[in-house]
Amino acid sequence: MSLIEQYKDVRSNTENICKPLQTEDYVVQVAEFASPAKWQLAHSTWFFETFILIPYLPGYKLYNKDFPFLFNSYYNNAGDRVLRANRGNLTRPTVEEVYDYRQYVDNSMLMLLAQSKLPAELVAITQLGINHEQQHQELLLSDIKFMFGQNPLFPAYDSQTKLMNQEKNTSTGSLKISEGVYTIGYQGNGFCFDNELSVHKVYLHDFEIEKSLVTNGEYLEFMDAGGYEDFNLWLDEGWAWLKNNQISAPMYWHKIDGEWMHYTLKGLRKVEADHLLKHISFYEASAFAEWKGMRLPTEFEWEIASNQLHWGQRWEWTNSAYLPYPGFKKAAGAIGEYNGKFMINQMVLRGASIASSPNHSRSSYRNFFHPHTQWQFTGIRLAK
Amino acid sequence: MSLIEQYKDVRSNTENICKPLQTEDYVVQVAEFASPAKWQLAHSTWFFETFILIPYLPGYKLYNKDFPFLFNSYYNNAGDRVLRANRGNLTRPTVEEVYDYRQYVDNSMLMLLAQSKLPAELVAITQLGINHEQQHQELLLSDIKFMFGQNPLFPAYDSQTKLMNQEKNTSTGSLKISEGVYTIGYQGNGFCFDNELSVHKVYLHDFEIEKSLVTNGEYLEFMDAGGYEDFNLWLDEGWAWLKNNQISAPMYWHKIDGEWMHYTLKGLRKVEADHLLKHISFYEASAFAEWKGMRLPTEFEWEIASNQLHWGQRWEWTNSAYLPYPGFKKAAGAIGEYNGKFMINQMVLRGASIASSPNHSRSSYRNFFHPHTQWQFTGIRLAK
Amino acid sequence: MSLIEQYKDVRSNTENICKPLQTEDYVVQVAEFASPAKWQLAHSTWFFETFILIPYLPGYKLYNKDFPFLFNSYYNNAGDRVLRANRGNLTRPTVEEVYDYRQYVDNSMLMLLAQSKLPAELVAITQLGINHEQQHQELLLSDIKFMFGQNPLFPAYDSQTKLMNQEKNTSTGSLKISEGVYTIGYQGNGFCFDNELSVHKVYLHDFEIEKSLVTNGEYLEFMDAGGYEDFNLWLDEGWAWLKNNQISAPMYWHKIDGEWMHYTLKGLRKVEADHLLKHISFYEASAFAEWKGMRLPTEFEWEIASNQLHWGQRWEWTNSAYLPYPGFKKAAGAIGEYNGKFMINQMVLRGASIASSPNHSRSSYRNFFHPHTQWQFTGIRLAK
Amino acid sequence: MSLIEQYKDVRSNTENICKPLQTEDYVVQVAEFASPAKWQLAHSTWFFETFILIPYLPGYKLYNKDFPFLFNSYYNNAGDRVLRANRGNLTRPTVEEVYDYRQYVDNSMLMLLAQSKLPAELVAITQLGINHEQQHQELLLSDIKFMFGQNPLFPAYDSQTKLMNQEKNTSTGSLKISEGVYTIGYQGNGFCFDNELSVHKVYLHDFEIEKSLVTNGEYLEFMDAGGYEDFNLWLDEGWAWLKNNQISAPMYWHKIDGEWMHYTLKGLRKVEADHLLKHISFYEASAFAEWKGMRLPTEFEWEIASNQLHWGQRWEWTNSAYLPYPGFKKAAGAIGEYNGKFMINQMVLRGASIASSPNHSRSSYRNFFHPHTQWQFTGIRLAK
Repeated sequence: MSLIEQYKDVRSNTENICKPLQTEDYVVQVAEFASPAKWQLAHSTWFFETFILIPYLPGYKLYNKDFPFLFNSYYNNAGDRVLRANRGNLTRPTVEEVYDYRQYVDNSMLMLLAQSKLPAELVAITQLGINHEQQHQELLLSDIKFMFGQNPLFPAYDSQTKLMNQEKNTSTGSLKISEGVYTIGYQGNGFCFDNELSVHKVYLHDFEIEKSLVTNGEYLEFMDAGGYEDFNLWLDEGWAWLKNNQISAPMYWHKIDGEWMHYTLKGLRKVEADHLLKHISFYEASAFAEWKGMRLPTEFEWEIASNQLHWGQRWEWTNSAYLPYPGFKKAAGAIGEYNGKFMINQMVLRGASIASSPNHSRSSYRNFFHPHTQWQFTGIRLAK
Repeated sequence: MSLIEQYKDVRSNTENICKPLQTEDYVVQVAEFASPAKWQLAHSTWFFETFILIPYLPGYKLYNKDFPFLFNSYYNNAGDRVLRANRGNLTRPTVEEVYDYRQYVDNSMLMLLAQSKLPAELVAITQLGINHEQQHQELLLSDIKFMFGQNPLFPAYDSQTKLMNQEKNTSTGSLKISEGVYTIGYQGNGFCFDNELSVHKVYLHDFEIEKSLVTNGEYLEFMDAGGYEDFNLWLDEGWAWLKNNQISAPMYWHKIDGEWMHYTLKGLRKVEADHLLKHISFYEASAFAEWKGMRLPTEFEWEIASNQLHWGQRWEWTNSAYLPYPGFKKAAGAIGEYNGKFMINQMVLRGASIASSPNHSRSSYRNFFHPHTQWQFTGIRLAK
Repeated sequence: MSLIEQYKDVRSNTENICKPLQTEDYVVQVAEFASPAKWQLAHSTWFFETFILIPYLPGYKLYNKDFPFLFNSYYNNAGDRVLRANRGNLTRPTVEEVYDYRQYVDNSMLMLLAQSKLPAELVAITQLGINHEQQHQELLLSDIKFMFGQNPLFPAYDSQTKLMNQEKNTSTGSLKISEGVYTIGYQGNGFCFDNELSVHKVYLHDFEIEKSLVTNGEYLEFMDAGGYEDFNLWLDEGWAWLKNNQISAPMYWHKIDGEWMHYTLKGLRKVEADHLLKHISFYEASAFAEWKGMRLPTEFEWEIASNQLHWGQRWEWTNSAYLPYPGFKKAAGAIGEYNGKFMINQMVLRGASIASSPNHSRSSYRNFFHPHTQWQFTGIRLAK
Repeated sequence: MSLIEQYKDVRSNTENICKPLQTEDYVVQVAEFASPAKWQLAHSTWFFETFILIPYLPGYKLYNKDFPFLFNSYYNNAGDRVLRANRGNLTRPTVEEVYDYRQYVDNSMLMLLAQSKLPAELVAITQLGINHEQQHQELLLSDIKFMFGQNPLFPAYDSQTKLMNQEKNTSTGSLKISEGVYTIGYQGNGFCFDNELSVHKVYLHDFEIEKSLVTNGEYLEFMDAGGYEDFNLWLDEGWAWLKNNQISAPMYWHKIDGEWMHYTLKGLRKVEADHLLKHISFYEASAFAEWKGMRLPTEFEWEIASNQLHWGQRWEWTNSAYLPYPGFKKAAGAIGEYNGKFMINQMVLRGASIASSPNHSRSSYRNFFHPHTQWQFTGIRLAK
């Protein structure tokens, strides 16, 4: 696909994700970590406007001089911004106006990308903008799910969604990998994030990794065995998290009339034992592994094993902290704030999920969240 | 006006207040104290459904079995409810559905009220419901203003609103009242709240009360004289409030390019020196009075002087705590939670404001808020 | 007693209160509201140093130039100070050094007070300092009790203390007072606080007030009847306080092996049914009164009835907010911060307690605390 | 040294550290992370009582049945305990009684250890207890320093202490290490913690590491260059930490009359430019490295380079998260809570400090703290 086609494709995908929403659903911010859909539609647009149109399209006029303040996320270099926690307080601009903003920026972007001989730097930043918007597509889905999941009415996002078509394991057994020096990092010619570089060597010891992900049924055994009451299974901060937040089941699970139900994108459904577990924190993944007498793989083990695994339905917690690779270099300017500054207190997830955008997964991809995070489409793969 | 006319009148007034809103504006809760317009539209409807239709209209069917949980405010006797802070998280039911709910309940109410020979108890509770909805009309305006006032775009609520037509004093000088025994409380035959009773006597000492309210210009003198920096003028908890919240001007005031502007229902406007000050806390009112070498009147002084004063543009802070009158009796059941349980830690305001509903003011009316409250249309009248 | 005798008397009484303490017991601050004994010993000394020795004793030298910063409590006019919450972090100066400081200041004070012809202003401020130290004597006892009461070992303050010799009612029945105009405020020639003035008139309606205080046994009936579970009995903020702090009994009560015990100055003891209830908040007092179908008296009713009541064992919560009397004037300078600036959000208590200093009670005395306060020696007298 | 000599040695060292303290200094807890000296004296004793005397000394009688509750730190398997934040509220048992407790347990331990043929398990747990007490010796020093450092009087811990004799670098230049497979972990026959195992291989790329630690003078250059104001140098959570806590210099630094002073164990002293920087957080270390265009070493680089480096004056922050080594196994029972459960959200420090106990350092030693931690004797060594 050409760059211009990629651009059009990703922009329309974003809007398709929002199709099932009512106007009201675009506005609200239920938790600090979950941004309103309206904000995300505008923010991904602001990214193109700020980092591409302003520097590269001569004569470009800002759609609205207040929008940079409203829709900057965390780029200190790009100026002041609305506090993250206040994104949901803004009923204006309206949803309609945000769609107008998207249209306005798209028109300019398409004009710009239609030029022959695009400078390499412009191509690179456009690709970053496309990948950035793809990341927000997954956030849109997880944030919308979170918002509806807090509503006592449990409204369905889309009762016909195809995103839940693959919820079961397709392989069983485990894979053995022998110790030795392996190469890690993105080695292709396409796009990758700066955090996937530089390519480097690691020494891995013999390990075994499961071909299947943990299912709801297996996790229910852990729960029934008192997994949430046995502090010996938990990291100390995990146990504190569980106590402070009164956690006793994965996010979205509700015991109703003696039966476990969970909120899904299709609404409230029965928890199916053979479906893949989702929406668990690193702390829960770690406790479950401990209970099984196993462990989580490192991100390096995962990457080396990945070409022999079936993956892509759940983001898989690894026992690796999110830290720079040897030789990591962050980009100059505001774009340098993209990844590097988050390399503390977060754990790496590998793979992809049913909510990940098409054309947005790689075996070298490093996703990262704080260990208490549950609202992403996370799961568990065990190793030993 | 007949009861049925009153009902229709107040219900349509509520919807008129919401006319200038976009769908997005109905949903958001900017602070715990400020409820979304959608919630208020539904809550005042729930009041009629819960306390009138269910007990008095045979065969009445709930519009939606989940709504009582969603739209109960603070009536413990009426069952569980959504946490106050979460009212803004509910994008569903949609605004349209809430208007349907209003219509549904109105149809039933009109059917009920059209009956001849309404029991006295039903009339009483309907009158309470009407007055309750009038109270929410003022809250709608103050909450909407607060929401827009937090938006960096400062959108106008209604640039043509007539609510701001009377912003100046019409009298000057002061009024002297002689000491003696006076009678306090509601003595008419119409509706009043339980907190205005029983009628009782108080002894007042000689006092003098201003015929005018404090203006922006007078308050600017206080600010220019360092009023916000001199702890000797402030109550101890007022000083802590000011420091913790970095308060240095009334709510909605912004110094822009060296000039004091304030957010109003018409949008951002210049602060006019001869307009009546508004949106100040009791702490600010108290400090201002101290600076003037005067004091705030008690609620009893206010009530006795009121028939010789021009009032109704601002809620006037008094130096009386909100406590029961001698002989105060709260109603039985859930309605008993209306007023009595709030009689602690709040100060009484007397009068009414430009945002108060027509036909909803009395010289015996006791409004009450915590002393740090700023978002109501409050003002200052001095005494000595 | 002469002023110099009064001074010596009150200073030695303070040190007598501390006799049962170990060095360790002087240092710790268990809660922000409860100051360490060491701090109180020094602070009451600082009061004399700052407001008397510095202005009135020519050539007086500060004991230590850092002490004003360490031992100022809340007098903004007297300069910066250690944050209240940090008073317990100061292990130095040592206890011994603080006693040296007391000795040093006492020597200077005695020299000053021995002069003939003391200026009236000096006498007045010395009397205030003496009364101030008496207030801290009661705080010492309540703060020490609170500290020991948090210790799982429940150490006795003094197993032989005579403070607990009078724990029962000596009268029963009720007293009726007729409506009319009454005079309120301190009318004697001795010392009183500014908040007891000016003398003024109030109109009281017919009321009845109990001659006895509520006993543990009566309160246990309230508890057994589900008083802590019935929200209809509680003020709204009282109910929130109870829920947030998981309150289900008076402070210091523990159910051990099925029996109610409470921590006392003599250590852990059985709760005696016929002893006077103590350590309850205004919220608890108010709920109990509601349950009884009665109410708390106002401070004016209390004052008028007081000469026919037996009082002095418990601080009695009234249903009056702590507000200025008509004609209240605060003193000039730092001393003006003594009372007036606290006249918001607090309720008046009348009477005195077993922990009050001898010669420190008057029927016009206005004690005041926030309504959630429990650690003072508070109790309940009902009215209707 | 025999085990019994080691035991006696470490026990008396602990008490020597406390020699300069006054009784008051033993009691207070200034912050949740810093335990009172009294608590630490008792807690390290409780460890021997709980894990050795009770299981291994027949007929041993608890010194006091309440002490396990008071002096357990974080061992869930060893029963309930006082909340960490409340350790400073306990004035009883007194300091003297805690020394009696130490004596009592020492007597029993010496009796037990004097037996011939000690079971291997007993030897192992005794060695762990000794190392545990050594860790508390360093905590004693850092916690005492923190307590005195918060006191406006800045009392010296010991103005003659020899701990500050070595404050300068003794080497300069850098060390180059070539890429390849290296062996990591404790390979000796003596004691090591479980987290130093198992011995395993890592692949290191070419790197260079400084022979010297960063000095105050070098850090002052960073400060003077605006290092605390340039968000581009900081990790995102580091920048938030700095803003929320208003950090603009290392812990204990105060600018007094235009000169940088810092609180030290000898009291307030001038910051010497050629002394080694101390008391900085990982966030500060990371920002400084960024400003220098360098980075922090990984813990593996550090371990491999360590035998060619001079180290031991500062705990050196590495850019490695505290995670289990391949093959890590935690011990059974309560002892298993020693290290493993903390393997999240913390960064590894390598080396030792001037406050570390003699005979308590190894090149394989893994110390760990949260990245905002400043109160330990931390420093910076750069790599690239």
